[in-house]
Amino acid sequence: MPELGQSAVDAQDLALFEGLLAGNRRELAKAITLVESTRRDHALRAQKLLDAVLPHAGRSLRLGISGVPGVGKSTFIEALGLYLIGRGHRIAVLAVDPSSTLHGGSILGDKTRMELLSQRTEAFIRPSPSSGSLGGVAAHTREALLLCEAAGYDIIIVETVGVGQSETAVAGMTDCFVLLQLPNAGDDLQAIKKGIMELADLVVFNKADIDPAAAQLAAAQMRSALSMLHPASPNWKPPVLTLSAMRKDGLVEFWQTIEKFRTTLGASGEFEARRRHQALAWMWQLIDAGLRSHFHQAPAVMSELQDTTAAVEAGRMTPAEAARRLLDISAG
Amino acid sequence: MPELGQSAVDAQDLALFEGLLAGNRRELAKAITLVESTRRDHALRAQKLLDAVLPHAGRSLRLGISGVPGVGKSTFIEALGLYLIGRGHRIAVLAVDPSSTLHGGSILGDKTRMELLSQRTEAFIRPSPSSGSLGGVAAHTREALLLCEAAGYDIIIVETVGVGQSETAVAGMTDCFVLLQLPNAGDDLQAIKKGIMELADLVVFNKADIDPAAAQLAAAQMRSALSMLHPASPNWKPPVLTLSAMRKDGLVEFWQTIEKFRTTLGASGEFEARRRHQALAWMWQLIDAGLRSHFHQAPAVMSELQDTTAAVEAGRMTPAEAARRLLDISAG
Repeated sequence: MPELGQSAVDAQDLALFEGLLAGNRRELAKAITLVESTRRDHALRAQKLLDAVLPHAGRSLRLGISGVPGVGKSTFIEALGLYLIGRGHRIAVLAVDPSSTLHGGSILGDKTRMELLSQRTEAFIRPSPSSGSLGGVAAHTREALLLCEAAGYDIIIVETVGVGQSETAVAGMTDCFVLLQLPNAGDDLQAIKKGIMELADLVVFNKADIDPAAAQLAAAQMRSALSMLHPASPNWKPPVLTLSAMRKDGLVEFWQTIEKFRTTLGASGEFEARRRHQALAWMWQLIDAGLRSHFHQAPAVMSELQDTTAAVEAGRMTPAEAARRLLDISAG
Repeated sequence: MPELGQSAVDAQDLALFEGLLAGNRRELAKAITLVESTRRDHALRAQKLLDAVLPHAGRSLRLGISGVPGVGKSTFIEALGLYLIGRGHRIAVLAVDPSSTLHGGSILGDKTRMELLSQRTEAFIRPSPSSGSLGGVAAHTREALLLCEAAGYDIIIVETVGVGQSETAVAGMTDCFVLLQLPNAGDDLQAIKKGIMELADLVVFNKADIDPAAAQLAAAQMRSALSMLHPASPNWKPPVLTLSAMRKDGLVEFWQTIEKFRTTLGASGEFEARRRHQALAWMWQLIDAGLRSHFHQAPAVMSELQDTTAAVEAGRMTPAEAARRLLDISAG
């Protein structure tokens, strides 16, 4: 195993690396831009930088926050971030936004949405990369998360919107996955249908000030629904909270619950086990994707694939025979 | 694309092939044994036989039936089989039983469990292969299913027991997935927790004769629970039926529902689309498994894998860097 550390950094990135470790936001932003770059020479430099950064990463609480548009994610994250800064923390906010890859622009992580938080030097807010597949965006966010940790941010919030597989990606890179809901019944049905609720370590009903009785009812229904689902952890029954991010009501209880979560999972060893599992699962996902990509790029496969899949779809060839042929071709 | 047909069959298997197409049960059983064999020369003959059989396959209704032990699967399948034989059908019963691979013997598909049905020449009952991983067992069952179709069985029942991933495998090889339940509440909660209910095209409460009121209540609760889940089909809301296989009550309604399912999904094009999707998904599963297996067998990968995964688990190497190194090694 080669030695990791500062020596690995590309010469031109030494100042970047040192600024990053010193907690400089400008250097952190540049490092993330380097990691997100699609240029081949940038990729090599980014790889070296990440290697050097790794021994300094890992010492944060990684919080995933998901909720449909309109649930008040920005207001919640800003209120939470300001509260945590008041308690001496440094906060980074990242985003995995599949819609940004569709529309060429990010709807999440926009600094104008969190004006007060973005003015604080203890906070770093980064919008979602605006190009690439969900897989690519998620990969970049994972690496940005490591950079933020090396820059000394001790609470990393990764936010996402309830679209497609982005929740699974965010739950797979964070320690605690929070589902933000509105106190109306249709909303939690959607979450159940999409399988998002099974990922939740904590469910929070925002805007509880508008109709407190309705929020309590929605929370009770959610508790009952959650009891029917398989919890994400064997050591933790997902609590259901109500709060108002706008009025800053319930933030203290929210953070106490997060701290209890960390203590409980830490004591059972699950906290570290989750991270190890996430890292290995991520490695295998990348290996599978690499193998598949290598397979698709083999010229012999490219020339045969269309005919073979057509034969399988038409029932002229068994899937087993098709797989055998294509694997033989790709192996050369 | 090479021509498929009788010419492809190995010379020594010509009689087997012709007997199979003539609907001879003994030939069918021998063909399935050939397909299940782990001998390399058998695998080659099986492959040729399946190629030859394929143009004669596909013309059945493939019915998946799942339920926990004690739900009355054998009684139900026997009663249904005899009813369908009475209507002029020929029935094949196959099994995907993950427990058979654990205990070295099949608990499903045992002919002694369906004594009346197994005596009928219009029925063919085959126990689950008693060795191999779930993936291997499922692969053999998929191929056995094609052989049964070529032998003229027009309704193929693939049964499985509610353990692990076997339901997903069976739902992925059948046209209609039926979940058999007992009229007690704990049972359907288990199905929801395990994600099985989302696969169901039809839910059936058996043993409804014991306490009809309890069965009706269970069915109503199930309908309410199903309305919260994402249905397997956009064109079909999974009905919930009650019946008694022991008393042969409700079989007619059950079959009418299956026929309505086939008509509805056939009219929308979803019936054929599902089969195409299943065949392609199966091909890609086999390709991914083949690529992964090839990767693991590369000597250079074998010698590096342990150190690399340990480095990832300990946080000394990023998953991305580990994947890159291992992929480079395997390609080189």
